[in-house]
Amino acid sequence: MKVGRIRTGTGPRWVAYRDGSVFELDRPLGGTVGERLGTTAEFPLIAPCPPGKVVGAATNYLGSTDRYAGISEPMVFLKAATSVIGPGDPIVSPYQSETVVWGEAELAAVIGRRISGITPEQATEAVFGWTIGNDVTADNVDGRDHHLARSKSADTFCPLGPYIDTDYRIEGRRISGHLNDRLVTTGLTSDFFWDPYVLISRLSHWFTLEPFDVILTGHPPLVGSLPVMGPGDVYRARVEGFELDLVNPFHGSPAHTPEETGDAPAR
Amino acid sequence: MKVGRIRTGTGPRWVAYRDGSVFELDRPLGGTVGERLGTTAEFPLIAPCPPGKVVGAATNYLGSTDRYAGISEPMVFLKAATSVIGPGDPIVSPYQSETVVWGEAELAAVIGRRISGITPEQATEAVFGWTIGNDVTADNVDGRDHHLARSKSADTFCPLGPYIDTDYRIEGRRISGHLNDRLVTTGLTSDFFWDPYVLISRLSHWFTLEPFDVILTGHPPLVGSLPVMGPGDVYRARVEGFELDLVNPFHGSPAHTPEETGDAPAR
Repeated sequence: MKVGRIRTGTGPRWVAYRDGSVFELDRPLGGTVGERLGTTAEFPLIAPCPPGKVVGAATNYLGSTDRYAGISEPMVFLKAATSVIGPGDPIVSPYQSETVVWGEAELAAVIGRRISGITPEQATEAVFGWTIGNDVTADNVDGRDHHLARSKSADTFCPLGPYIDTDYRIEGRRISGHLNDRLVTTGLTSDFFWDPYVLISRLSHWFTLEPFDVILTGHPPLVGSLPVMGPGDVYRARVEGFELDLVNPFHGSPAHTPEETGDAPAR
Repeated sequence: MKVGRIRTGTGPRWVAYRDGSVFELDRPLGGTVGERLGTTAEFPLIAPCPPGKVVGAATNYLGSTDRYAGISEPMVFLKAATSVIGPGDPIVSPYQSETVVWGEAELAAVIGRRISGITPEQATEAVFGWTIGNDVTADNVDGRDHHLARSKSADTFCPLGPYIDTDYRIEGRRISGHLNDRLVTTGLTSDFFWDPYVLISRLSHWFTLEPFDVILTGHPPLVGSLPVMGPGDVYRARVEGFELDLVNPFHGSPAHTPEETGDAPAR
């Protein structure tokens, strides 16, 4: 089943997605599909779930880094839940307009139940389904580590969707990112360094994963240089087997950050 | 007012704290204090709020690093909400027993309303109150950056409490951490690099802060070497002006991590 959400006057509502239409769905996990509501043009899909946390895997495709020697643990970071947006929503950088911002097309796992200390086999049962994610990232400032929260967790920096496919098989799929019409990143899930189910097992030994937590499985290797986004650009994340891409425009930076206006001096 | 929470059969319940006793409280923000329920021995205080996100400031005391030159932005990281525990709860490391784990006593702000793009002056109104935090941290593996999620976000790695003081004044306070009876870290809030209200203002320009989000304001300079915790140790975080310390035992590592048992190979 393909599960998504639409916006209503009383908050988000779960729906099923099929062939450009959305249908009533009584609940997301094990729910029953009801009447057709209309097209996705009439009922736009929003972010397909409300994660409590978003965990991203760094350098998880062979070829995306040359630093795999001696790696015994996954390298992961968190994105704030407040960074999540849906398909079509604009990505807005809160940083100075000179700050470099780029997209990262990724396959994303959506957790289905509360898990702790599980095996990779159990992880296959614990995943509710799969969706597409865009791990939008900004260069950090002052030459510091770019995996800290500033570069990954700004509002709008985590597009997800358009839907969760609960029957998706991850094997041998191509993941690609496009900046406007240019292919900027591409890879195959057969080139994961950490298999997603092994990754989820490992993570579950570190911290409890809860329903609708999202695991971004890593960014495939770049095609050419860093695909820096400018105002008016559109980033398209594509995952083979998904009927729809995850597409978000980039609106640049409003020029009223505290650094630019001098509102908030350090001390 | 001093606001905390106790555990009940139907979930956490807000209470007011005064002089070793807890009292009924109809709601945390602007609530009315009711009848005395009993002592904290009868009604132990748990984590004083349920944060959606926990943001930690890195190297925010003068003297805690020599890398302040040219810093134009706060350096912050996220801790998973699932890492939060309360006073007295054991800290348990999920990592191999050789992994170094230490505590970091910190002054913590609790956000009172949904904020985005606010000034430092507005931040003084947006803080619900202050509590004590312990930013428990593990060395990362393989020589990689220790600000990534693994080192900061394990379950139990964020003790908070015992209560939130809504009338607390942060100026000129001493923060100290004690491993068993040894002073291991100490500093004064007058030595913040980023004033907490400026910090909250800056963060609010990057991401939306929500009620009960927690901001850990940084770790004061160490007294001597890194206070590595061993099984049976007790970490005590003390903030001047708080009647109670935040005290948590360290239970070490259970020897059944996937690395140790070989349950979860990389590929």
